[in-house]
Amino acid sequence: MFYQRVAVIGVGLIGGSFALALKGAKRCGHVVGAGRSAANLELALERGAVDSFESEAAKAVRGADLVLVAAPVAQFEKIFLEINPHLKPDTLVMDAGSTKRDVVAAARKRLGGNIARFVPAHPIAGAEQSGAGAADAGLFRGRRLILTPLEENKKEDVETAAALWAGIGARVSRMSPQEHDEVFAAVSHLPHLLAFALVSGIGARADAARLFGYAAGGFRDFTRIASSDPEMWRDICMANSDQLLKELGCFSGELEKMRKLLESRNSKELEKLFAEARAARGRWLNGGYE
Amino acid sequence: MFYQRVAVIGVGLIGGSFALALKGAKRCGHVVGAGRSAANLELALERGAVDSFESEAAKAVRGADLVLVAAPVAQFEKIFLEINPHLKPDTLVMDAGSTKRDVVAAARKRLGGNIARFVPAHPIAGAEQSGAGAADAGLFRGRRLILTPLEENKKEDVETAAALWAGIGARVSRMSPQEHDEVFAAVSHLPHLLAFALVSGIGARADAARLFGYAAGGFRDFTRIASSDPEMWRDICMANSDQLLKELGCFSGELEKMRKLLESRNSKELEKLFAEARAARGRWLNGGYE
Repeated sequence: MFYQRVAVIGVGLIGGSFALALKGAKRCGHVVGAGRSAANLELALERGAVDSFESEAAKAVRGADLVLVAAPVAQFEKIFLEINPHLKPDTLVMDAGSTKRDVVAAARKRLGGNIARFVPAHPIAGAEQSGAGAADAGLFRGRRLILTPLEENKKEDVETAAALWAGIGARVSRMSPQEHDEVFAAVSHLPHLLAFALVSGIGARADAARLFGYAAGGFRDFTRIASSDPEMWRDICMANSDQLLKELGCFSGELEKMRKLLESRNSKELEKLFAEARAARGRWLNGGYE
Repeated sequence: MFYQRVAVIGVGLIGGSFALALKGAKRCGHVVGAGRSAANLELALERGAVDSFESEAAKAVRGADLVLVAAPVAQFEKIFLEINPHLKPDTLVMDAGSTKRDVVAAARKRLGGNIARFVPAHPIAGAEQSGAGAADAGLFRGRRLILTPLEENKKEDVETAAALWAGIGARVSRMSPQEHDEVFAAVSHLPHLLAFALVSGIGARADAARLFGYAAGGFRDFTRIASSDPEMWRDICMANSDQLLKELGCFSGELEKMRKLLESRNSKELEKLFAEARAARGRWLNGGYE
């Protein structure tokens, strides 16, 4: 596969890295970017992620063989609506959204007949840095990439999308949009919400300076994801609110269990839960759940 | 200060690192270790953290000029009781416990007249690795060390303890045991409890393998502290349960706020909380709370 003209809508960490990776793998000719921030697009140009940019997504996709939509997910419906009239019949459209049911619904609503060539994708390669300045050609190497193919998709388009991401180093899996949103509510969206809640709670306290003043390495790693992009995470949380609320309910149950163990001074059971957590995490780190 | 004979009770990450650091700084002669695991003591000997070891703390402290108690905090009362008859009148005793009110209470109960020469200390240098194998002479460099001096302490002993830790690179602060336990409940003990709760909850689910299978870098960092030593953290949580329950209550309130925002689809307020968290964490990382 070689794409003469690639359009990237939203040239941030993910969109910019995708462009750099495609260029590095010599899979594309001209890359045109589009986005809301002219300064970010200038930076993407400077860094060589894009060869040109447009302020409007509609203009950027004209003549493109491949389109990647990598904006915060709440913007997808508007972007699909804008680009739809300008897509060539053979343009492959992908996204990089962190939620999938909402993205698929927006695509079904706004892409008309082009829905067949829209293959939903989610690269699991987030970081707390955002913007084109954080883009990195090697970002997807060894990382998971989830495709949630549609019944409208042709088999060969799904294969092409899979090969494209594999070609820049990603480990490609497939699942349904529902399964995707369930899994990532548990292992990504909830942890982000917890980290944001902890840090904003401490930050709002009268003794915030004293508390942060003694926070150390454990706190730093635990809260790293609380430095993530607020708009992006607002959109993810709203788009996947039903699954996230379900996970929040499960987790509140776990905390209630911990509270009862502390109150009843059940140190034996508390240690058992800690040991189970350590063992499960150890299995995970050692590839026991791959 | 030079200590001819140093006894380290509990030669794990902290005790072992303290011994290696003292030796590196040429502040001590012979280091004798004591602890429950003969294998760990052998490892400490092999790694040069101790020059000899005893199976009993009472034997280890005989003739020591300096004693560091670095075991899980629930063992302190028993250790103080055992070592008290064998301390020289001029032996400086310190601990490295992660909680302070319980340690001070145990010392007051069991150290008799030697309480005056017990200077409670907490090096903020935890890691999820434990045991003598993880010990590192540079562990305390640039890390905080909290002293919670007692009214019984002589000023010069507190100064000596501060200078000793500063000499191996620590940034020494002082506060009361109560203040210590309040601060660390918020920025250390609660995050550990949350990480343990999240991982043990996911590990207990029927679809644990699927969930862990898609967990990525954000999850890895968020849950790093869930790989911490279960016994050590059981003891910390039990010793500081009142402050930890208070922090758990605050955090549950934060989660309830998040739940309401998700349910009422108040994306504006949700984004505001996320942005506040990101800003507070950014200030912290940039030294704004030092």
